[in-house]
Amino acid sequence: MWTPTPNPSPQGGGENHEHRMTRLSTATRNKLKTVSTATVATALFKRGLRIQCIQNVHPLGPDQPTMVGEAFTMRYIPAREDLNTIEVFRDRGHPQRKAVEECPPGAVLVMDSRKDARAASAGAILVSRLQQRGVAGVVTDGGFRDSAEIARLGIPAFHQRPSAPTNLTHHHAIEINGPIACGDAPVFPGDVILGDSDGVIVIPADIADEIADETFEMTAFEDFVAEQVAQGRSILGLYPATDPQTPADFAAWRAKNGR
Amino acid sequence: MWTPTPNPSPQGGGENHEHRMTRLSTATRNKLKTVSTATVATALFKRGLRIQCIQNVHPLGPDQPTMVGEAFTMRYIPAREDLNTIEVFRDRGHPQRKAVEECPPGAVLVMDSRKDARAASAGAILVSRLQQRGVAGVVTDGGFRDSAEIARLGIPAFHQRPSAPTNLTHHHAIEINGPIACGDAPVFPGDVILGDSDGVIVIPADIADEIADETFEMTAFEDFVAEQVAQGRSILGLYPATDPQTPADFAAWRAKNGR
Amino acid sequence: MWTPTPNPSPQGGGENHEHRMTRLSTATRNKLKTVSTATVATALFKRGLRIQCIQNVHPLGPDQPTMVGEAFTMRYIPAREDLNTIEVFRDRGHPQRKAVEECPPGAVLVMDSRKDARAASAGAILVSRLQQRGVAGVVTDGGFRDSAEIARLGIPAFHQRPSAPTNLTHHHAIEINGPIACGDAPVFPGDVILGDSDGVIVIPADIADEIADETFEMTAFEDFVAEQVAQGRSILGLYPATDPQTPADFAAWRAKNGR
Amino acid sequence: MWTPTPNPSPQGGGENHEHRMTRLSTATRNKLKTVSTATVATALFKRGLRIQCIQNVHPLGPDQPTMVGEAFTMRYIPAREDLNTIEVFRDRGHPQRKAVEECPPGAVLVMDSRKDARAASAGAILVSRLQQRGVAGVVTDGGFRDSAEIARLGIPAFHQRPSAPTNLTHHHAIEINGPIACGDAPVFPGDVILGDSDGVIVIPADIADEIADETFEMTAFEDFVAEQVAQGRSILGLYPATDPQTPADFAAWRAKNGR
Amino acid sequence: MWTPTPNPSPQGGGENHEHRMTRLSTATRNKLKTVSTATVATALFKRGLRIQCIQNVHPLGPDQPTMVGEAFTMRYIPAREDLNTIEVFRDRGHPQRKAVEECPPGAVLVMDSRKDARAASAGAILVSRLQQRGVAGVVTDGGFRDSAEIARLGIPAFHQRPSAPTNLTHHHAIEINGPIACGDAPVFPGDVILGDSDGVIVIPADIADEIADETFEMTAFEDFVAEQVAQGRSILGLYPATDPQTPADFAAWRAKNGR
Amino acid sequence: MWTPTPNPSPQGGGENHEHRMTRLSTATRNKLKTVSTATVATALFKRGLRIQCIQNVHPLGPDQPTMVGEAFTMRYIPAREDLNTIEVFRDRGHPQRKAVEECPPGAVLVMDSRKDARAASAGAILVSRLQQRGVAGVVTDGGFRDSAEIARLGIPAFHQRPSAPTNLTHHHAIEINGPIACGDAPVFPGDVILGDSDGVIVIPADIADEIADETFEMTAFEDFVAEQVAQGRSILGLYPATDPQTPADFAAWRAKNGR
Repeated sequence: MWTPTPNPSPQGGGENHEHRMTRLSTATRNKLKTVSTATVATALFKRGLRIQCIQNVHPLGPDQPTMVGEAFTMRYIPAREDLNTIEVFRDRGHPQRKAVEECPPGAVLVMDSRKDARAASAGAILVSRLQQRGVAGVVTDGGFRDSAEIARLGIPAFHQRPSAPTNLTHHHAIEINGPIACGDAPVFPGDVILGDSDGVIVIPADIADEIADETFEMTAFEDFVAEQVAQGRSILGLYPATDPQTPADFAAWRAKNGR
Repeated sequence: MWTPTPNPSPQGGGENHEHRMTRLSTATRNKLKTVSTATVATALFKRGLRIQCIQNVHPLGPDQPTMVGEAFTMRYIPAREDLNTIEVFRDRGHPQRKAVEECPPGAVLVMDSRKDARAASAGAILVSRLQQRGVAGVVTDGGFRDSAEIARLGIPAFHQRPSAPTNLTHHHAIEINGPIACGDAPVFPGDVILGDSDGVIVIPADIADEIADETFEMTAFEDFVAEQVAQGRSILGLYPATDPQTPADFAAWRAKNGR
Repeated sequence: MWTPTPNPSPQGGGENHEHRMTRLSTATRNKLKTVSTATVATALFKRGLRIQCIQNVHPLGPDQPTMVGEAFTMRYIPAREDLNTIEVFRDRGHPQRKAVEECPPGAVLVMDSRKDARAASAGAILVSRLQQRGVAGVVTDGGFRDSAEIARLGIPAFHQRPSAPTNLTHHHAIEINGPIACGDAPVFPGDVILGDSDGVIVIPADIADEIADETFEMTAFEDFVAEQVAQGRSILGLYPATDPQTPADFAAWRAKNGR
Repeated sequence: MWTPTPNPSPQGGGENHEHRMTRLSTATRNKLKTVSTATVATALFKRGLRIQCIQNVHPLGPDQPTMVGEAFTMRYIPAREDLNTIEVFRDRGHPQRKAVEECPPGAVLVMDSRKDARAASAGAILVSRLQQRGVAGVVTDGGFRDSAEIARLGIPAFHQRPSAPTNLTHHHAIEINGPIACGDAPVFPGDVILGDSDGVIVIPADIADEIADETFEMTAFEDFVAEQVAQGRSILGLYPATDPQTPADFAAWRAKNGR
Repeated sequence: MWTPTPNPSPQGGGENHEHRMTRLSTATRNKLKTVSTATVATALFKRGLRIQCIQNVHPLGPDQPTMVGEAFTMRYIPAREDLNTIEVFRDRGHPQRKAVEECPPGAVLVMDSRKDARAASAGAILVSRLQQRGVAGVVTDGGFRDSAEIARLGIPAFHQRPSAPTNLTHHHAIEINGPIACGDAPVFPGDVILGDSDGVIVIPADIADEIADETFEMTAFEDFVAEQVAQGRSILGLYPATDPQTPADFAAWRAKNGR
Repeated sequence: MWTPTPNPSPQGGGENHEHRMTRLSTATRNKLKTVSTATVATALFKRGLRIQCIQNVHPLGPDQPTMVGEAFTMRYIPAREDLNTIEVFRDRGHPQRKAVEECPPGAVLVMDSRKDARAASAGAILVSRLQQRGVAGVVTDGGFRDSAEIARLGIPAFHQRPSAPTNLTHHHAIEINGPIACGDAPVFPGDVILGDSDGVIVIPADIADEIADETFEMTAFEDFVAEQVAQGRSILGLYPATDPQTPADFAAWRAKNGR
């Protein structure tokens, strides 16, 4: 049996997960709300982190805001039929229901559904409850049921595709807030989750602040470049800024635009 | 060779398929129009039926109404090149064209395309004809061509993804109204097909009435729960209704809302 | 419902399927036993037939003889749980059991399992019965259980991979000897099935004789080429025989080797 | 090493690719802008061309205009880590950046990303630059990052799904304007690319004019048929026009509608 | 964080896992060694358990004995690059190394590799150590490296396919002996694992004894049937034994063969 | 069009590919013949190279020797039907035939078949010719036809699975000796290819010598460890050698065994 240890290394998880839940500062959260998953992916790539993007998940609503929050996780294994009758939901300790009531406000509930969308990971009632509780968003590498209603709720929600069957059909909720796989990415409780129209990315907790700072700056430069390109300028020498004129132009642009 | 028998068991199909075509009562149809595939999936799950959801099909239009009707089926096998020249459509007995002219009003045309969307299962002209004939909807586990026009027609239509090539390219229409596979679900002619934004589900013909009754009731309870949760109530004790107060509250809500 | 017609076109199948069962002459059978699926694939390709190879099936035993016979087919759809209890096998009319007792001696039983190997298409007892009845071989695009025992029986058998669960788990046997898909190839009852270490190929019934003749000749040439190449000759001008010396050398080789 | 030859056959590519870049006449371009990928697919099917559809690509924006242009290609191979650091973009000769600056106005940039959408093929800044330079559209069988911004730009763009990571993460840009695979279709530089809501299709350069002429006519007939069907006419005898009345009705329709 | 509880239900795992490790009696182990995964699959199917087969795993050696033992599990998540350098193996507490030294004699080490065979789950040195320690076998739904050496060792080992890269390349060992998914089957520590040439099946711990008894009897009947069929008897009435003569014949066979 | 440049960087390929063909020294070749793909994978992993393993390819024969040689590549794109008639083989410049006659002795022919095994990449006659010409081995991420004959030839050959259809059916040979993808690995002409029972790995040309040296040493240590483990020693402290006694024991073992 897995025994959590007091050792705060991410190898085994443990007490530090609790700790991380409080680590995301307001400053970092606010900065991340203004950057894109694409820009963060580049910043992580520069650090040798290539697989932090949760693959093949999509926002349910077309105009949902950027999602930012610490990961609170839940893990499913395949549903053994005798252990997953409709009655199990009567147990208030059922991990899925527990997760919905315990996921901290401001956090993101991330579900490991083994990329299996044949049954839903959750439906509109649970997602509505998460929203009421102030949770920042919800992600599964499987699917949601009541997908149109979830889209209308407005809370950022990401999945592979809609799926009508109840989770009990193919999923057995087994664990809350341990390390998981989600869309082929590793997710440790407390990692910072960012989601937008390109999907969802996982920022390791211990570098969230520096990634926020760096991508905030990168975003200013990208906005400058986008404006220049929209005015007809070539990308050569501009992006990346190998032409010595580019940094000068960028400095002028920042001054002019107050960024 | 497969020989249809008068035996009405679903094992072999047969005369009973014709019979079933008239079995869907107006009351059941109307009830099913007000429930969701998610709710029906749960009711089927309670009866041990786990694979009735047609996997990975999506509505072509964003706001199409709930689709309800008895299954009228068509089956494709891979297209042998010498048997699938453009001339085959000149045969008025070609199963695809025949299906389009014979699918009963109120029924749903369900096509087994072996989950292969490399060629279209049908296009806008045929779907428009189905609509004119009063057919309730159309489903393929492959793809439709002219997908934007089909979306504009307004008839409920579900597929995996758009696909431009004519069906002859990879599909050979071989049989009308026999038992088929569609999106990994079994579909018998006369089964009741329900479709909404979460996808499509297959209700065995002989339990359609009881499923309609049961899910109609379940939907009232879910609407009550959704309203409660939107007002901040916890799901514990509410969903499922293990708290004795919940049934009482629900009864009051029904009385108040006339449901 | 699909209605077989007396029309002998492969569009609908029908009486002609019975007829075809007697069409494979001893001469053609014997010729095909000496050629390879690769050579037949090339002969079919020359006629515009590109998809006759049953994809991704493998022989169970390493040294089984070349399999030749007319296709006798069976089709599975996904197993609805209420229709596939263990008791269904007590029905002597169950299509799987019926197929095993009715597949003609010299024919090949080809099963459409929708490429789904999660449950077996059959096991050693049924395959042993087929062997006892003189059936020429058995093919599924799913899997067999008791795979080691089947390999020991010696009858040519081809599948995707071993699979322990009974067919009832995921497959519902629905039809005998209609047109099917198998491994993305179209199979009509009476088509001639050829299997060797490269897999299985489907020869349309009406060209089986000419394919046998042509590939018998092609095989002589390929044996000549293989011998030449093994002696160090370049393939340029030899294969294909664009060098005028090649036909002369081949004629000499045939004379010398009596072929 | 691959050596381009002056031989203008499509087997090896070469100088003729340059030549083709000027072959798409304004008349053909304009005709193709009024037809659909579905109609073109049928015209290609009649000529034995079955795999010209780029499979599983979707428009980023819902209302983008029909895309027409000659193919200008780029090829990715998997990204070896030591050769794909962030610094490689500082090289103005990097094939991705070069392609963006060299793709001719009116052409379509088609990228072979090996159907791998785990990393982006390009992002909004590069696509904006392509738009500024008058490029007709952009296609990848992988994914784009900044997908929402690309959708807002309005230039026709097609991909499998959004993907946040920079191309360097999994893709190494290796070659410009050679023959490629894209979505399981062969694409030669200079082939004519057509894209609409059903996806993207590749018209071999040497038949682009005749395909444009033929599909322009086919489209008139299909519009006639669609109108008739919308008015309640059966497809039998109408589509295809096996009823002798149909050609007469079509002639009258053309006269009346000036087509 | 997941907190094991003293509650012995399989919902959350816990102390009972330890307990189960001692539950497999010698009698049950010995009976299971004489039955097949196919027979056990049928016995589980009769109890409504359809997904206990670990899909798509194969024995490494052709003649390895039947594998029987309690599950001792290990779980991998995707390997974050900064946490999976070659140095992590220097930590004696690394879960993969720990599992190899702690898996009890007579147990089977079952690894959840998320069906990802791009990197190895383990290699010959670790498997040799397991063998030395008396472990009954090893299973991964990914792949093993040094596969030829593992095959020569003789210990039952099952995987999807060989894979050369070290596990650190794509897998991060995260947990020992918790509930896992393996090849789409649920595996709880202490479940009884059976493996033969058809693959691997998971018997829930609490029914292992009755399954062993039942399948031991079923095996006698199947051996009787196999012998009868090999002598030319029809399966109708024999398998299943619906003919009243069959039970009588079986009784005689048992008496004669001492079974 | 891709233009090879004199610049020897692997970004664009070019003249240096010729050069590399002569770079593999006899010493390095001989060392690599004694090491495993697993050991090389670990050495590459230490350098940050994670994707050099050609995924999902298997040796055709069970006992073929370790394959070592420089990569000589060929690339297929999907086969456009009009360009891939049986007559194209009459052209002596057809890339597949040319590759077979030009691949240098001692090199390995590596084919990019886009992981598509629906048609063969080559057959026994061409592989026999390669063997006659002294080529060291042949690899495709698709399949070979005549697979049993290729296995009997004895030349190392690796593929995904057997496939009967001629390459023209789905593959168009387009280029010789450019950079390719093979089984999701990047392969540059001149890279050193190593193959054994675990599959095939690609060693970048410029580090082949150091990888050979390093893995030759690693293999000695692994052989020592394997022997120790087979004698009952724990892996803790031994593998990796964190126990100070281990290096001492290894030194003694080397002295005793002359390694």
